[in-house]
Amino acid sequence: MSQSNIPVPPVPQFAPSEFTLTSISGIKASGVKAGIKASGNHDIALLVSDEPMNCAGIFTQNHFAAAPVLLSKKHLEKSKNKIRALVINSGNANACTGTQGEKDALAMCEQVAQLVKCETHEVLVCSTGVIGVKLPMDNVRNGIQKAYDTLSTDIESGRDFLKAIMTTDAFAKEFGMKSNGATVAGICKGAGMIQPNMATMLAFVATDSKISIDEMKASIKEIADNSFNAVHVDSHTSTNDTFLMLSTGKTKSSTEWKNNISRVAHRLAWLIARDGEGATKVTTISVAGAANDEAAKSIAAQVASSALVRTALFGNDPNWGRFTSQVGNSPLVKNPFSLVCTLQGLEVFRAGEPVKFDKAEASKRMAQEDVSLKLELSDGPGKAMLMTSDLGYRYVQVNAEYTT
Amino acid sequence: MSQSNIPVPPVPQFAPSEFTLTSISGIKASGVKAGIKASGNHDIALLVSDEPMNCAGIFTQNHFAAAPVLLSKKHLEKSKNKIRALVINSGNANACTGTQGEKDALAMCEQVAQLVKCETHEVLVCSTGVIGVKLPMDNVRNGIQKAYDTLSTDIESGRDFLKAIMTTDAFAKEFGMKSNGATVAGICKGAGMIQPNMATMLAFVATDSKISIDEMKASIKEIADNSFNAVHVDSHTSTNDTFLMLSTGKTKSSTEWKNNISRVAHRLAWLIARDGEGATKVTTISVAGAANDEAAKSIAAQVASSALVRTALFGNDPNWGRFTSQVGNSPLVKNPFSLVCTLQGLEVFRAGEPVKFDKAEASKRMAQEDVSLKLELSDGPGKAMLMTSDLGYRYVQVNAEYTT
Repeated sequence: MSQSNIPVPPVPQFAPSEFTLTSISGIKASGVKAGIKASGNHDIALLVSDEPMNCAGIFTQNHFAAAPVLLSKKHLEKSKNKIRALVINSGNANACTGTQGEKDALAMCEQVAQLVKCETHEVLVCSTGVIGVKLPMDNVRNGIQKAYDTLSTDIESGRDFLKAIMTTDAFAKEFGMKSNGATVAGICKGAGMIQPNMATMLAFVATDSKISIDEMKASIKEIADNSFNAVHVDSHTSTNDTFLMLSTGKTKSSTEWKNNISRVAHRLAWLIARDGEGATKVTTISVAGAANDEAAKSIAAQVASSALVRTALFGNDPNWGRFTSQVGNSPLVKNPFSLVCTLQGLEVFRAGEPVKFDKAEASKRMAQEDVSLKLELSDGPGKAMLMTSDLGYRYVQVNAEYTT
Repeated sequence: MSQSNIPVPPVPQFAPSEFTLTSISGIKASGVKAGIKASGNHDIALLVSDEPMNCAGIFTQNHFAAAPVLLSKKHLEKSKNKIRALVINSGNANACTGTQGEKDALAMCEQVAQLVKCETHEVLVCSTGVIGVKLPMDNVRNGIQKAYDTLSTDIESGRDFLKAIMTTDAFAKEFGMKSNGATVAGICKGAGMIQPNMATMLAFVATDSKISIDEMKASIKEIADNSFNAVHVDSHTSTNDTFLMLSTGKTKSSTEWKNNISRVAHRLAWLIARDGEGATKVTTISVAGAANDEAAKSIAAQVASSALVRTALFGNDPNWGRFTSQVGNSPLVKNPFSLVCTLQGLEVFRAGEPVKFDKAEASKRMAQEDVSLKLELSDGPGKAMLMTSDLGYRYVQVNAEYTT
């Protein structure tokens, strides 16, 4: 049942960020067209630091983690979190590719190490694109050479780097800030599972502020939990998801680095949710008063992953029954009758019974780009936050009419 | 973003069943129009047995369980699972209605008990419809009287009973069989969460075969797990869900009763999944070789509840990545690389890598009313089965454009 006249929501327009990865002193980057993507667009990205950078990473938990993910984890460990370069290809995920895939990922790092004159384990590698297809290594090799030859610190090279990691993204995602003399800049790619064979989320946030490896390691989980791990477009985790934090340490240490990196990461994650599969808005679901943070997260995920909740958000339908019944279904809720549900500032449910509210006003408030859904219990101190995209006709179209 | 030209899938046509609840000797039933439903359709259903029936029940686990559910559970306990009558209203769920709701549910049982001349706790009550609105008790009282006055054993009265429990169902759901002199007949209502305020699943399966209360209690969970608990239209559990097994014991005991009730319950559950929100098919997801049955169920649920999986099913898209990545995401999977994924008899994934298969043929096989998706692991003896409906344009339409 094809439907070619589905209204396509307009692509949101964001002013270009002033910052991209090359805004960070010490970082050179490039992005080139190597013929891996069928579209002919940029598909090899290279980032090189003139001195070792401190690095922390979080990788996919998927059992079918791709070869580049496994290799980068190994290299990060072997280099004791001090890396020189990062090479990425888009158009091919190098996942479900067996031992050949492992060899190809290693070959990419080896080539970069030779060019940069560093150890192979000082190079990390990411891939994103089609699953189950071997990498076209001739294109990859030529692309890496070309990318090395065009490395630069200018902002255009940073933008090319970003282009070369994008796949189904409807728009480029970058954000940054300068504060007390230190700069934080981040880029990412990802748009939910529009094309589940190309669904990877890659995110890189760099700063010139000096941060110790121990500090980075100690904070990356919390930063990710409030940003990339809180994006809940459709509860799939890809084979290639990677988030790296990088510090060149070229400027003085800023005490605000953690807050600033968190802010940048949160904005990038918001942009991913905003891009999700014909989404028209981002809904931030906050759970408070759960027994503990784990329970809060599970309750938020149960709400965020419901197709019924997401269609109500698409339809600007203040249908509180869909939100509260997901809470009512959770075995982790202890005092369900303490639930207070607040939608865009309007209380709609309290203590087991609906609250009278202006439905037209609620619907109007839901027709915004940022929607807030608060669920408060009285089970304990647990809280959690998730960002989810809505589910409309365009979601069905891109997902049902993808390969056939 | 309204979309009025969405193609509505045709309502499936099923030949009327030969059997309904009044096919069971000892059972009288009726269904009347009492003015509770805005549509003016049948909305009070009454079932009376001339002698106490053995009864077992399974009720919603939702924290916000409705007043009639809580009362029926209490009555079933107090009557030691021997009941005389069952009264149901549709059009109003009597849920989230506070203490008035409890009084109203009790008043319904008291009125029936007075008419039938039995104890109040020998009467069970169910409600289905809008949540958060008090019952119009004058209509209910008049309706119960009228229903009592029209009780009959003929098949038309059984059909009226079924009509009076339906809400958003696109078609009537009944099924039965006769085997070795004993009859099993069942009816149900439910169509996923088309209108989440009217989403209850009610199912009643009766037999004239003599079954002891202990046997019924011992088997109802297993029967429900292979039927109504295996329906996964959108992972919501309503405030009012109820499944009752009834035995009048009017004919000899049949050794096949459990198999036969299971068959009837499975067919009824299939009909609910088939009716789900613009569904075009029912997909049976089977997981085998999981560590244990709980793990298998969790993996199956993770696949069944994915909007990506359900849109692929709608689009007849043999996109194995969507099925396998959900398995790959489960922390309960021990040996992910043992996964074999078989779609409608075609193997599409084995041991971490895709298998070559005829995509056009797979897509053709998916365009059927019954689709099978098998996921086999080698973690242990655990298995599970779920039936899910697909998710298409019509799903978005009915769910996004419901109240606004």
